[in-house]
Amino acid sequence: MIIVPEREIGGLLTREAAFEAVERVFAAMAAGEAYNFPVVREAIGHEDALYGFKGGFDRSGLTLGLKAGGYWPHNLAQRGEINHQSTVFLFDADTGKAQAMVGGNLLTALRTAAASAVSIRHLAREDAQVLGMIGAGHQAAFQLRAALEQRAFKKVIGWNLHPEMLGTLESVAEEAGAPFEAVGLDGMGEADVIISITSSFDAILGADQVSPGTHLACMGTDTKGKQEVEAGLLARATVFTDEVAQAVSIGEAQHAVAKGLISEGDVHQL
Amino acid sequence: MIIVPEREIGGLLTREAAFEAVERVFAAMAAGEAYNFPVVREAIGHEDALYGFKGGFDRSGLTLGLKAGGYWPHNLAQRGEINHQSTVFLFDADTGKAQAMVGGNLLTALRTAAASAVSIRHLAREDAQVLGMIGAGHQAAFQLRAALEQRAFKKVIGWNLHPEMLGTLESVAEEAGAPFEAVGLDGMGEADVIISITSSFDAILGADQVSPGTHLACMGTDTKGKQEVEAGLLARATVFTDEVAQAVSIGEAQHAVAKGLISEGDVHQL
Repeated sequence: MIIVPEREIGGLLTREAAFEAVERVFAAMAAGEAYNFPVVREAIGHEDALYGFKGGFDRSGLTLGLKAGGYWPHNLAQRGEINHQSTVFLFDADTGKAQAMVGGNLLTALRTAAASAVSIRHLAREDAQVLGMIGAGHQAAFQLRAALEQRAFKKVIGWNLHPEMLGTLESVAEEAGAPFEAVGLDGMGEADVIISITSSFDAILGADQVSPGTHLACMGTDTKGKQEVEAGLLARATVFTDEVAQAVSIGEAQHAVAKGLISEGDVHQL
Repeated sequence: MIIVPEREIGGLLTREAAFEAVERVFAAMAAGEAYNFPVVREAIGHEDALYGFKGGFDRSGLTLGLKAGGYWPHNLAQRGEINHQSTVFLFDADTGKAQAMVGGNLLTALRTAAASAVSIRHLAREDAQVLGMIGAGHQAAFQLRAALEQRAFKKVIGWNLHPEMLGTLESVAEEAGAPFEAVGLDGMGEADVIISITSSFDAILGADQVSPGTHLACMGTDTKGKQEVEAGLLARATVFTDEVAQAVSIGEAQHAVAKGLISEGDVHQL
């Protein structure tokens, strides 16, 4: 039994390793070798918490297990603990025995950042110069750091509902040698790549605020009802996802599909 | 973090403690304080294994977590390991942090035995004298041992597809001071209490092979398609369950409900 506490993850997992792992599992999913199980997500009626399980199996790497945990909204204010809490449990695919327990908080942050970075590496234009960020919370800094390694970005522009929070993104950008500029949503037209990473339940970015040829990575929508971009934007875009079933039910594509603007068949497996 | 390996469970959990825990959680479920999450169960396409998660929350005891694992049919023959493998993970309901990891194999056996024992304690006639067993596998001995503590049974009768396996039940019965008799299915009419614990996908016990007033605990059917007793028997019985949603979808009541012999409303929460 291998136990990796949360505090050890930072010293063990690099951005590069996270990128390679996510790239490999996306390839395994596209080859039909890996898939996610149905997501369990429950409002448990205690501490306003959302709790559940995301499981899956990668036959090519014999990786079997789940992430369990969720969102405890009062953790930070009442206990000084982060609100997102998760733990990963791995099983021996040959016997069904529990094999490893791994702290999942930093792992989730690095994985989520790697997912948009992989999409940029493989789908954004080679000569992309301006990177746009929508959202400036805890996770946004991870997305930005991983994205900056994929192209020779000359500038980062950012929008957030609370602009006073944009300082963190500015620090991350300048650390990587890219100047940062706070913009309004209309300013996003300048971006060649946009990452949205918010917890919004309404469209933020309008279809007309994005220039043709821009690569968008919509990362925030992970639940039925959430939304970051206008549904019409998906109708004008080529839509890729790691898993179609999730994209059209709990991901950003749910609204465009529900409105009949695109069909499930228009959502391409990466 | 509390870690309880499989080998320690035998020294830690008594039949009495399992009985009390199951009785308490059934009461919490009936009071709307505890419930199960949707079950995830996947044929993963490796080693013919079935793998999944059974989670739940008991608000009254602040018990939150899941059992993960499944059925690896080649474990015993190929590796000398038991085929059912499961691990229980508990979480702090106040923060979402992982709290305990507990070997789930013996726990499952004791819990399943306690469930039919609780039903006998509360629902079988007080003067029950003959206990009938259908099935004689690994789990049947656990069911019998726990059941024998609930009433002053004078005799145990047993049926199994392979009668040569009934020796284990005979030993358990005689250890508890009750003589044992192997019977045909028509012999089950003598029983005041019957426990079925098989992995059957077809009805074994006919409606006419059960005497009026007999208490039946149908324990084997845990999956869509499985079945132990003729559907018509449920139409003639008063049907109780710990969770109606599971009983009518993956439990013994699924067939009678599907045939329209009873409705979901006829299945009573314990």
